[in-house]
Amino acid sequence: MLALVLEKTKQLNLRPVELDETVGDHDVRIRIHTVGICGSDVHYYQHGRIGPFVVKEPMILGHEASGIVEEVGAAVTHLKPGDRVCMEPGIPDPNSRATRLGIYNLDPQVRFWATPPIHGCLRPTVVHPAPFTFKIPDNVSFAEAAMVEPLAVGMHAANKAAIRPGDVAVVIGAGPIGMVTALAALAGGASSIVIADVQQPKLDLAATLGPITPVNVSRQNLKDAVDAATDGWGADVVFEASGNARAAAAVFEPLCPGGRVVFIGMPNEPIAYDVVGASVKEARVEHVFRYAHVYPRALALMHSGKIDVKPLITDAFSFEESIEAFDFATHMPARSVKAQIVLQQ
Amino acid sequence: MLALVLEKTKQLNLRPVELDETVGDHDVRIRIHTVGICGSDVHYYQHGRIGPFVVKEPMILGHEASGIVEEVGAAVTHLKPGDRVCMEPGIPDPNSRATRLGIYNLDPQVRFWATPPIHGCLRPTVVHPAPFTFKIPDNVSFAEAAMVEPLAVGMHAANKAAIRPGDVAVVIGAGPIGMVTALAALAGGASSIVIADVQQPKLDLAATLGPITPVNVSRQNLKDAVDAATDGWGADVVFEASGNARAAAAVFEPLCPGGRVVFIGMPNEPIAYDVVGASVKEARVEHVFRYAHVYPRALALMHSGKIDVKPLITDAFSFEESIEAFDFATHMPARSVKAQIVLQQ
Amino acid sequence: MLALVLEKTKQLNLRPVELDETVGDHDVRIRIHTVGICGSDVHYYQHGRIGPFVVKEPMILGHEASGIVEEVGAAVTHLKPGDRVCMEPGIPDPNSRATRLGIYNLDPQVRFWATPPIHGCLRPTVVHPAPFTFKIPDNVSFAEAAMVEPLAVGMHAANKAAIRPGDVAVVIGAGPIGMVTALAALAGGASSIVIADVQQPKLDLAATLGPITPVNVSRQNLKDAVDAATDGWGADVVFEASGNARAAAAVFEPLCPGGRVVFIGMPNEPIAYDVVGASVKEARVEHVFRYAHVYPRALALMHSGKIDVKPLITDAFSFEESIEAFDFATHMPARSVKAQIVLQQ
Amino acid sequence: MLALVLEKTKQLNLRPVELDETVGDHDVRIRIHTVGICGSDVHYYQHGRIGPFVVKEPMILGHEASGIVEEVGAAVTHLKPGDRVCMEPGIPDPNSRATRLGIYNLDPQVRFWATPPIHGCLRPTVVHPAPFTFKIPDNVSFAEAAMVEPLAVGMHAANKAAIRPGDVAVVIGAGPIGMVTALAALAGGASSIVIADVQQPKLDLAATLGPITPVNVSRQNLKDAVDAATDGWGADVVFEASGNARAAAAVFEPLCPGGRVVFIGMPNEPIAYDVVGASVKEARVEHVFRYAHVYPRALALMHSGKIDVKPLITDAFSFEESIEAFDFATHMPARSVKAQIVLQQ
Repeated sequence: MLALVLEKTKQLNLRPVELDETVGDHDVRIRIHTVGICGSDVHYYQHGRIGPFVVKEPMILGHEASGIVEEVGAAVTHLKPGDRVCMEPGIPDPNSRATRLGIYNLDPQVRFWATPPIHGCLRPTVVHPAPFTFKIPDNVSFAEAAMVEPLAVGMHAANKAAIRPGDVAVVIGAGPIGMVTALAALAGGASSIVIADVQQPKLDLAATLGPITPVNVSRQNLKDAVDAATDGWGADVVFEASGNARAAAAVFEPLCPGGRVVFIGMPNEPIAYDVVGASVKEARVEHVFRYAHVYPRALALMHSGKIDVKPLITDAFSFEESIEAFDFATHMPARSVKAQIVLQQ
Repeated sequence: MLALVLEKTKQLNLRPVELDETVGDHDVRIRIHTVGICGSDVHYYQHGRIGPFVVKEPMILGHEASGIVEEVGAAVTHLKPGDRVCMEPGIPDPNSRATRLGIYNLDPQVRFWATPPIHGCLRPTVVHPAPFTFKIPDNVSFAEAAMVEPLAVGMHAANKAAIRPGDVAVVIGAGPIGMVTALAALAGGASSIVIADVQQPKLDLAATLGPITPVNVSRQNLKDAVDAATDGWGADVVFEASGNARAAAAVFEPLCPGGRVVFIGMPNEPIAYDVVGASVKEARVEHVFRYAHVYPRALALMHSGKIDVKPLITDAFSFEESIEAFDFATHMPARSVKAQIVLQQ
Repeated sequence: MLALVLEKTKQLNLRPVELDETVGDHDVRIRIHTVGICGSDVHYYQHGRIGPFVVKEPMILGHEASGIVEEVGAAVTHLKPGDRVCMEPGIPDPNSRATRLGIYNLDPQVRFWATPPIHGCLRPTVVHPAPFTFKIPDNVSFAEAAMVEPLAVGMHAANKAAIRPGDVAVVIGAGPIGMVTALAALAGGASSIVIADVQQPKLDLAATLGPITPVNVSRQNLKDAVDAATDGWGADVVFEASGNARAAAAVFEPLCPGGRVVFIGMPNEPIAYDVVGASVKEARVEHVFRYAHVYPRALALMHSGKIDVKPLITDAFSFEESIEAFDFATHMPARSVKAQIVLQQ
Repeated sequence: MLALVLEKTKQLNLRPVELDETVGDHDVRIRIHTVGICGSDVHYYQHGRIGPFVVKEPMILGHEASGIVEEVGAAVTHLKPGDRVCMEPGIPDPNSRATRLGIYNLDPQVRFWATPPIHGCLRPTVVHPAPFTFKIPDNVSFAEAAMVEPLAVGMHAANKAAIRPGDVAVVIGAGPIGMVTALAALAGGASSIVIADVQQPKLDLAATLGPITPVNVSRQNLKDAVDAATDGWGADVVFEASGNARAAAAVFEPLCPGGRVVFIGMPNEPIAYDVVGASVKEARVEHVFRYAHVYPRALALMHSGKIDVKPLITDAFSFEESIEAFDFATHMPARSVKAQIVLQQ
C-alpha cells in the first residue's frame, strides 16, 4: 500500500510499503479517511527524534485519524463494516499493572502510532483493536473526528483539573492544544477562560470560540488580567499549554488559594519551580501524559454541540499533497491552527 | 414597613410589621427588588409546617431575592450603595464547627429566611451579612438574579456529582429544581441529559433548554431510554429531583457501573433502597442540603451565557398582588415553572 | 483429582473430579495449601443458591486460598515454581469496558471461584492467571494468606471510605467481615473504632484487636455511644457490615455532618432508607462489590505488622475433614470467627 | 509578665513585658506549660527574618504550646478552667473568603504566633480563641501535647497525600518534620516508609519508630532502595521534607505511575522541576502551608496509641534556661530531635 514514510530526518516519501496486518478476534480493519498533522509529526520530520524516541528505521507518520470500518474480528460486537470511526492511537498491554489499574496511558509498553518504531496511519488502511476504535455520531464529520485526538489531550487535562461548575480557568498558550484545552475546560464547567499568548492572530481566533478573554502577554500582565476578572482572588485552574519554560515557571502567580495547575506542555529542560509560591496557595499540580478513557466523552460533547472544533480546522490537503502539507505545517502561518490530509473524498 | 406575613396556615396578609434592624460592621441594608415564590413558601402557606419546622408566630415569607444595596457596614469593602445584588438566605454561626470546616450549610444553628421562626424577605428592605451578599453582573436582570437561589440547589447537586466532561446524566423530575439541575449539570460538563417526568408540558419545556431528552415515564421506561442513549452502559450520574418515593427507589436501574447518584428531592417517608442493586454497580450516593459556596459560581455562569434561566421565569406579580401570586403558585398550571413578585419597577 | 464437591443443596462429597486445565502463557498452576470457609460457601451448601446464582451442576466449593506455585506460563515473569502465593478468586474479561476503566470487579463477565457455574479451589491444584496471583511475604503464613480474601473486602471498604488520619469509624456487625473491616479501617487511618453487635463473645474478641470499643446494641444505644466518643459530633465513617435491614436503616444516626457511609452487608430485601436524615448531614454513601486492586496492599500491611489476622483464625480442619468442617461452619459457635481447611502440612 | 523576647537578630532576653489581653466571649486564658522550640524560632533568632517576615520590633518567641485553662469567655462551652489543652497558633479572620471555604490556613490575614509582628507564647499566659484550643486526653502529657504543632504539619501532609491503606511512602529528610510526617503517614495508612537523609543518627532513630527503612543517600541511591521495596513499581507517595533543592528536584524518580508528591520543605530558591519526568507518571503534586483541621485528629491518634511522639522529645529546659535552650537548638546535636522549654513543674 502507498504510505507517507519518514525515511530519515527531513526526508519524506509517499511510497509503497509492505505491511502484513491480519485482523485478530478483537481487531477491526479501517479504511483511513482523514489524518491531522500534529506538531510531533512535524518534529520527527524536522529533527528525527523527540527526547528518547529516535527514528532509526523508515516510519509511517500520522496518528490523528478517522475512517470507515472494512472488516471486523470474530469477537467484535459493537462495530460493523461501514461504520464511521475514529481511533485512539495508543495501544497498551492488557496484562500490564498500569492497564489493570485503569491508567493504561502510563503503561511503559504502550504502542503509539508514529512514535518510533511504531508505524503511524498515513496509509490506506490500518488494523486496530476494537476497544480503541469509536463510532462517530452522524452529525460529526470525518474532519472533526480526526480532531478528537488533539481534543482528547485537552479533555484529559480538563478531567485532571477536576473543574467545578463556575470555575475561572487560565490557559497559557493559544496553539492547537491550548485551544482544545480551552474548549474542553468550557465544556467541563468553566464559566470563562483567560487565554495567554504572544501571537495576536491566535488570540483573536481564540476569542471567537466562547467566553474567552485573550491576553497578549507581550503587552499585558497575565496576573493583572486574572485579578481583574476575579476581584483579586485568582483563577481556580491554570493550564500550562505553551511548553515555554518561562511561562511554566509563573503558573502560580494567577492562581487562587486552593487552586489547581495542570501542566500539558513539556518544556525541554527542567523549569524553575517556585515551591514557596505554590505552598502559600496549597496549589494542587497535575500532570498529563496523552489521555485515557476520553474518546467517547469527546465524541459525546461534539455530538451534543457543546464542543465545536470546526473553527480550528483551517487547512486541508489531499493524500497526494502530503509532503506539501508537512512543509506547510512546518512553517504554519499564525492564522492557521490545524492542517489535515484527506485520503478519501 | 409593609410585608407579606403568613399569620397562620392559609392566612396571608400584606400588612405593616415593625422590625428593628441595624447595620453591623459586616452587614449591608438591601432594598428588595424581586422575590421568587418557592414550593416551600407555598407549603408553609398551605400547611403551616415542613417536617419539624412549624409556623407558631406570624412570619414574613420569601427567600429567593435580589435587590439594591442601600447602606453598608464599616468593615464592608466589596459592596457599596447602589450595587445590584442577590442574597444567600441562610446565615450560619461563624464560630460553629461545621462553618469552620467549610460546610456552613450543615451548621445546625443556621438562620434561614422564611424557615420558622426566621422572617423572610417579602418586604421593602433587609439587613444581611455582606459575605452572603453578591453583586449581580450587568447582563443579569433582577429577575434572573432572584433565580440564583433555586439554581444554587442544582449547582450544589452538580458539584456533588463530580461531573466529568462528557458524562451522561439523568434528572428525575422536571419541576423547577429538576430544570435548574439539568441546566447546572449541562454547564458542569454533562454532554446530554435524560429528564423524566409524567407532566408532558414540563417535559416539552425542558427539551428546549439544551441537549435534553424528555422521557414521559407514564408511557416510557426510563432504563430503556437511558440504555438506548448509552449503548446499554447506563448513565454516569442520576439526579433524583422528584421527591417521589417510587422514583427514588429506582435510581440505580439506569446507572452505569461506578456511577453516582445525587438525592435532591426529599420524600416524606423512608424509601425502599436496593442495597444489592447499588452494590453490584458500586454506586456512590450523595445527598445535598441546600448549598454552599455556589452563588458566585452561578452568577459567573449566567454572566458568561452558559446558564440561561429566563425560560424558567414564567409569571410575574406586583408586590400588591402578593396574595394572588401565592394563590396562583398554589395551583400552578403545568406550563408554569417560576412565579416572582416584583417589588420595584 | 480429589475435590470437595457440592452435588446439590445439603449434599457435599469429597470425591474425584476430572478437570482439564492447561497453563496458558499468562497463567500459573498452584498447589493449594489452605482454604478458608466463607459464609457464602456455607450458604450454597445449605440453600443451593445466593440470589440469582443457582447451583445447577455439581460445583467445587472454596475461594479463600493460599498455595505454592508449581508451574508458570511462558509470559510470567514475577512468579516461579516454589513461590508461596495467594490468589484473587475473581477473573474479569480483560477486554471489557469495566476492566479497562480499572473497575474489573464490576465486569458482569467476571468468573469467580465457587460462584455457579465456576468451580472453586477446594482441590489439590488450580490454574490461575498470574496477574491475580500474589507472592506471600516470608513472615506471613499460609493460614494468614488465606485470610487475605475476606480481609480484601474490608480493605476495599476502607478504601471507599476515603479515611483521613484520625477519623472515628463505626462498624456495624462483628462477624468476620465486620472484624476485618475494623482492622482495615484502623490500618487505614482511623484513630478508633466503635463496633456494634448483639453477640457478646464476638464483641469481646473484637475489643482485643486494637482501639476498638464494643457496643452491645441489645443493651446499649449506638448513637449514644458514638456521641460520647465524639463529643456529640458523630462518627466520620459508618461501615454497615451486618446485612441486617434494621441496622442498615439506622446508619445515618451516628454519622457526623459531611460523614461517609459504606454498605458492605447485603440485606435480602430493600431497606428503609432515610433520605432526609442523610440529607441534613450531606452523607456520602458508598457501596462495595467484592474488591479490586487490594491484594498486594493487604499483604503489605500484614508484612509490616499493621494488620494481624491471626486472632481471627479460630478453627482448622484437614482436607479429609472437609465435610465436618462445613457442618461446623454451618453451626459456628459464637466464639469462632474463621474455620479453614488445610490441604498440606 | 516575664517573657522570652527576641529584641533583634541574635539578641534574646527573658524579661518583663506588658500585654493587655482581655478574654472575649469566644476566648480562653491559658497558663502555658510546655513550649517546643521550632526551627523557625531559631531562624528568627539567628537571622531576624524568614522571607518577607522581618522582626522589626521586639517579639516574644514560641508557638508549639500546651497549658491549662484559667478563664473562659461567656460563649465558651467546650472548655472550663483546669482543662489541659494545646493550641493551634494561627488565628484566621472568620470573615475572610478563605476561612469561609474551610481553608483558613490560606487566609492572608491569619495571625500566627511568633511570626512578626505577632507575639508568641513563651510567657506565663496567653488569651486564645476557644475554637483553636483543644482538650488533651488524659493519657497524653503536656510534653506530647506541645508536639501536636509540629505533628500537625505531618498530619496535614498525610491528609493531602490521600494515602490509601497499604501505600508505600518515601519521606525525604529525617529532621523533626520528616519524622512526624513518617509517623503521620504510617498512622494514615502507609504499610511502610522509606526515609532518606544523610545524617546517620537521625536515620537510626527513625528506624526505631515503625516499619521504616532508612536510606543514607550519601551512600545509597534512593530510587534503587525504593525499587527494591516495590518490585520496581515505585512509591505511591513521596513526601519532600528536607527543603533541599537538589533532593526536591529528584522527587519524581522514586515515584510510581499515578503517584502523589507532597512538598513540605520550602527551598529558598526555585527548584529545577522535571515536567517531563512528572508527566510520564502523571504525578499529582500537592503543597502544604501549615495545616488546618488536624489538631483534634492528631490528639485522637495519640490518645489511641497509633502515634507516639515521645521518642522525638529529646531535650528539656526550664523557663529560666530559655536562652540556653535556644543556643542549644541553634547547634543541635544530630542525636537530638526536639528541645522543649517547660514553664511549670
